[in-house]
Amino acid sequence: MLKILQINRYKTSSEKKLAQSIKNLLGFYPKNIALFQQALTHSSAAKHTKSNERLEFLGDSILGTIVAEYLFGILPNKDEGILTQVRSRMVSRNQLNKLAVKLGIDKILRTDIKGNISYTLYGDALEAVIGATYLDLGYIKTKKIVLEKIIKQHLEVHSIINEDTDYKSRLINYCQKNKTSLQFVLLNETADGAKKIYRIGVELNSKIITEAENASKRAAEQLAAMAALEKLEN
Amino acid sequence: MLKILQINRYKTSSEKKLAQSIKNLLGFYPKNIALFQQALTHSSAAKHTKSNERLEFLGDSILGTIVAEYLFGILPNKDEGILTQVRSRMVSRNQLNKLAVKLGIDKILRTDIKGNISYTLYGDALEAVIGATYLDLGYIKTKKIVLEKIIKQHLEVHSIINEDTDYKSRLINYCQKNKTSLQFVLLNETADGAKKIYRIGVELNSKIITEAENASKRAAEQLAAMAALEKLEN
Repeated sequence: MLKILQINRYKTSSEKKLAQSIKNLLGFYPKNIALFQQALTHSSAAKHTKSNERLEFLGDSILGTIVAEYLFGILPNKDEGILTQVRSRMVSRNQLNKLAVKLGIDKILRTDIKGNISYTLYGDALEAVIGATYLDLGYIKTKKIVLEKIIKQHLEVHSIINEDTDYKSRLINYCQKNKTSLQFVLLNETADGAKKIYRIGVELNSKIITEAENASKRAAEQLAAMAALEKLEN
Repeated sequence: MLKILQINRYKTSSEKKLAQSIKNLLGFYPKNIALFQQALTHSSAAKHTKSNERLEFLGDSILGTIVAEYLFGILPNKDEGILTQVRSRMVSRNQLNKLAVKLGIDKILRTDIKGNISYTLYGDALEAVIGATYLDLGYIKTKKIVLEKIIKQHLEVHSIINEDTDYKSRLINYCQKNKTSLQFVLLNETADGAKKIYRIGVELNSKIITEAENASKRAAEQLAAMAALEKLEN
């Protein structure tokens, strides 16, 4: 009965359908359905409506903060280098794209693209949906929903945290196995006050494939190796 | 009277002094003073206590989200490229370092560094204080404090938003005036699904001084030019 009442808030049948999808996905009926229509409209399909790009900007930041706080809490003895690394991995492009498809975002995103659609669109739309949820419900409820419906159910946080985070060694092994020449190259070194920032590139067969920056050379190498493995293993 | 009662919550005179500094700075007496002791302890001075680096990780993310939401609200007609650009400028290293000194963080940060102290330490500590505030008071109150006590009072948001954001033209002018040769160099081009990511470098007198990435070449040029101007003008 409550469900029928809630669904009757929405005017058109497409609004009702979308509201039901959000309920199935995140566990609540949106107060402001227009936000979710926008979140699920790719720029290619945004003729008379707004696209999801601004909501993606907002959602990206909110998701990052929710994950930052979550890791801060569950990893009380890890330093900020590890926290940064685990977070990058949890909200990486690849991870978000896969997650969006797992959640069924691909089935409700409106696009007007002919031919193959990049999975990136789904990851972007997932961020936009998180942005819309934030505007609809506020930070505390959004945090609860993201943690319960997305992170804890679909991200194997435990395996991400416990996985071998020595990406440099893993990349070295990978390259030995695949007979690929590998070098870590210092691309740039800038001073930011007393702090130096190192930019390290991963060079495979004489081509830089990924880069990363950090105040610690070792951390920059790890981050660049992590990104390289993500590219190579997908 | 209330003030005396609140101050009496703290045990030692150094706790009382710090609590009063936080009250002066952000307008509230901390519930958990230990969080702020940690936020204001640089790793060089963290012998028997924790340093502020983990709180800086958290605060950096929270500040980014507060600014993202703020800009989302006050710039309803700007696309996500502009939002990203304005946010980068508002929470840039330089901006945060200057802001931290304006707020007096330099006077309460505990360090054990001989000689000159980099301003970066103060910007980092400001982020850590925001992280501590979040853990002490939650998101909604932290947002209010950051907006009212920091952003609206000390950041000339209006001038940041309205300032000439055509950084590329400004950089070209700067280089002509200073007889410096300038080139925008495409350093890297990676595919992320259907989306391409461009990495553009600003080359002054044959040396890359800054770099930036974006899915739009134009935006990457603007971001790299913005970073270059920030370096050159400070």
